[in-house]
Amino acid sequence: MDLGGTSIKSGIVQTSSGKVITRTILPTQTSLGQRVIISSVKESVKGLLEYASKRGMRIDSIGLGCPGTVDLRTGKIMGMIPNLPQLKNVNIKKEMQKEFSLPVCVDNDANAMALAEHRFGAAKGCENCLFLTIGTGIGGGIILNGKIFRGSNYAGAEFGHMSIKFDGKRCRCGNIGCVESYAAAPAIRKKTKRLLRKEKSSLLFKWLKGDLEKLSNKLIFEAFKKGDRLATQVVEEVSVYLGTAIASAVNLLNPEVIVIGGGVGQAGQKFIKMIEKQVKRRVNPSAADFEMRKARLGNDAGFIGAALLRST
Amino acid sequence: MDLGGTSIKSGIVQTSSGKVITRTILPTQTSLGQRVIISSVKESVKGLLEYASKRGMRIDSIGLGCPGTVDLRTGKIMGMIPNLPQLKNVNIKKEMQKEFSLPVCVDNDANAMALAEHRFGAAKGCENCLFLTIGTGIGGGIILNGKIFRGSNYAGAEFGHMSIKFDGKRCRCGNIGCVESYAAAPAIRKKTKRLLRKEKSSLLFKWLKGDLEKLSNKLIFEAFKKGDRLATQVVEEVSVYLGTAIASAVNLLNPEVIVIGGGVGQAGQKFIKMIEKQVKRRVNPSAADFEMRKARLGNDAGFIGAALLRST
Repeated sequence: MDLGGTSIKSGIVQTSSGKVITRTILPTQTSLGQRVIISSVKESVKGLLEYASKRGMRIDSIGLGCPGTVDLRTGKIMGMIPNLPQLKNVNIKKEMQKEFSLPVCVDNDANAMALAEHRFGAAKGCENCLFLTIGTGIGGGIILNGKIFRGSNYAGAEFGHMSIKFDGKRCRCGNIGCVESYAAAPAIRKKTKRLLRKEKSSLLFKWLKGDLEKLSNKLIFEAFKKGDRLATQVVEEVSVYLGTAIASAVNLLNPEVIVIGGGVGQAGQKFIKMIEKQVKRRVNPSAADFEMRKARLGNDAGFIGAALLRST
Repeated sequence: MDLGGTSIKSGIVQTSSGKVITRTILPTQTSLGQRVIISSVKESVKGLLEYASKRGMRIDSIGLGCPGTVDLRTGKIMGMIPNLPQLKNVNIKKEMQKEFSLPVCVDNDANAMALAEHRFGAAKGCENCLFLTIGTGIGGGIILNGKIFRGSNYAGAEFGHMSIKFDGKRCRCGNIGCVESYAAAPAIRKKTKRLLRKEKSSLLFKWLKGDLEKLSNKLIFEAFKKGDRLATQVVEEVSVYLGTAIASAVNLLNPEVIVIGGGVGQAGQKFIKMIEKQVKRRVNPSAADFEMRKARLGNDAGFIGAALLRST
């Protein structure tokens, strides 16, 4: 399962091949509070177990990717969870164990995605890989020496909270100048809106018929692909922000592959190439020999990775 | 040996205990070019081998810490070496092997220091540790899962070239806003000089009798310890720059210990506490449970770590 701020994605995964046997998606009813969210997770699992049982499949374990820092020893969700604060301090592992008699493994959602992309996707076979998921927030996963690296308190790989400006914007996390406050979906929309108020010749203004409230990141990246000047300016700025933070991470970790996923990350090859150019321009020349790739597993990455947790 | 831009430090080290049996230091005659520098290194080794032979000691290997990226497979020094450009593309390993019939191991100098602090110094026994050496430049070493981490092309741990400002100063390395251009010794001196031109009431102005060319980082930190307002302002700014970059590294790697060494790093506990405060204020709360410590092995760290290279 992949428990996110918008939806609960889940599936049955054949862990040897990464094949998704079936998948379901439920909205995360954040307004109804913690208990309802946990119930929805359980309902999803029940549905999948029934599916499996009818077809004579054996389910080995339940894996869960969640936002926040997950203490792997206890299964508790900790730290900052700006997109799903209802889960703070929930011991999701225990909750699941109470309900189901299967082994339960929990990890941070971006870690799960990184695991999946490393085993079956864009980073298959890599020794050292940096995985980024860019959407409402910016998450990260780090593969070092062929294994997921979580840090001393499972709090590592918080890529979105690397600072790109020591005297910049204050982030919800308490840090200053976090790349997430400059380059995640809400910041991109906000910046575009501001520019659109001044420049009405953009394709976007035409598409929206002037109703800026309907602006979405999908539209911004479509306008960018069509060469719209305003959208290109926004996306170029975003690539500088991301390029700065990724270059810092590359100068520290010298990975051979960087995988970009998430809603914004899926914006296309042209955007990936733009970020790559910024990073190559900035990194230590000895570390510049990396490849930047688009994530391959899309929305399935989170729950595929969660399914792999038991064997890693 | 620890081959630096100012001096060649070397010693005989008992690798089981970290004990330094004897040490020598030679100036690095950078103005005389590559061949003279390499000859000085060889002279140092010859002197130490004679010392050992007279006393019946057995020398197992020659270890060298050098600036730049060292390709451990070949022994070649690569990448940016702003403080010792004469060594670029030198295969220092082969040079030594031609002269001496002992195994030769070479690595980046900050990596060697990190190894030494991890085995015998301030980070003894740590699983995950970030080591920084702050002097003319800012170097780094990363210990992950109890082992030195070098990256895919031995180019990792370039902590000094993490950016703290996406639109900041251009660094010699090509990147923009590198923490090294804000917080290493030359930047600290430059900033202090600029302030001293305007504010003549500082202790520093008195000590220098107005001759700003004699300003040293040692004096700046002495004035800081005495509570001088101008020096405190400078050191506080430096702690913000360092705190920003270290917080980004902590959000990525979630280490349990951070060790600060090098000339500037040796400035004292008050400075370390100031940096620590900045980092704790900025990091993800789940990653805030680290200790910041002053390096313990001083100028010996580089060659002690070099001596350990063969067994790591």
